[in-house]
Amino acid sequence: MYGEAVSRLVVELKRLPGVGQRTAERLAFHIVQMPREGGLSLAQAIREVKDNVRPCRTCFNVTEADPCRICADPGRDRSILCVVERPQDVLALEKLGAYRGQYHVLLGAVSLLEGVEPEDLTLKPLVERVKKVGSEVREVILGTNPTFDGDAMSLHLRSALEPLGIKVTRLARGLPSGSSLEGASKAILAEALEGRHTV
Amino acid sequence: MYGEAVSRLVVELKRLPGVGQRTAERLAFHIVQMPREGGLSLAQAIREVKDNVRPCRTCFNVTEADPCRICADPGRDRSILCVVERPQDVLALEKLGAYRGQYHVLLGAVSLLEGVEPEDLTLKPLVERVKKVGSEVREVILGTNPTFDGDAMSLHLRSALEPLGIKVTRLARGLPSGSSLEGASKAILAEALEGRHTV
Repeated sequence: MYGEAVSRLVVELKRLPGVGQRTAERLAFHIVQMPREGGLSLAQAIREVKDNVRPCRTCFNVTEADPCRICADPGRDRSILCVVERPQDVLALEKLGAYRGQYHVLLGAVSLLEGVEPEDLTLKPLVERVKKVGSEVREVILGTNPTFDGDAMSLHLRSALEPLGIKVTRLARGLPSGSSLEGASKAILAEALEGRHTV
Repeated sequence: MYGEAVSRLVVELKRLPGVGQRTAERLAFHIVQMPREGGLSLAQAIREVKDNVRPCRTCFNVTEADPCRICADPGRDRSILCVVERPQDVLALEKLGAYRGQYHVLLGAVSLLEGVEPEDLTLKPLVERVKKVGSEVREVILGTNPTFDGDAMSLHLRSALEPLGIKVTRLARGLPSGSSLEGASKAILAEALEGRHTV
């Protein structure tokens, strides 16, 4: 229907999350029609990310420096470690600005369905990091997603870390702030009820 | 929040249509985490589009050959010309498969609001193309979007082409007003093509 270069671009764009045929075509035609410099500068930005961004060897967050900015920051609390699935989760917590500890990125989620085991993730480096002589970690917060698979990961982490005398906590579950009871799923309501506490 | 390369990529992605901060971050993190070859091949596809795709000198559709595939096709009806705003509109009509004439792409739309006049588009080359010795064009279909500004363009085209003895028709108002050709279903497009009439 359109030429080879455009077809190839559509195919490449469709690999991106949430981009189907129609969106890929819309983006491709936009790129075709944008000024040449704009297109090349997008291509260059992608190249640079692939060339310069890698996982931090300490926490596995994406970084251009190694160790990453957070691991290297002497102002961050080294006694507390939040374990999350993806770099995006670090970003979400950093945007919040309320967490001053460090992170460990699993680079994925345990998935029974897709056969992803805790061993496929960065669980081993996490345990080594906590065990290491000189480690100041006293508490590990499980920040995995509130899903069945996230829970499975929680159990794995707890059994790996509790023997080391580390306090293992997890992010609270309940009704999302600003939502309504009416709109909450049964699972959300059940957990909200389960986790009720004195006020 | 994140490093320079990722920030730059987010900025570049936000220039794409329909991509806000959140989507740009999601896409950027996906690109960061995809295999290196995948990222480079996306960057390369963008580069190639910018290097190889240009407007056809006859119809101004985007093309990798010049004249484009449609202008060069001896099987297409040269007596009929459909004038559309953007290359995407050609794609939409080609996907329909019911139109066997040729095209002329205006590379934009008249916009009173944004001060885009017919003279800023490829109106002059269109008139020259129709006037040219040997031109077989007998009918020009106005395929501009069914909007107020599209109508303004219709009037301009009619006054430019009717003196040349060209029959000027326009797509029927089967198209929902205020929408775009790109977003129209095949059924809507087919009705619009079928119901075209003299203006």
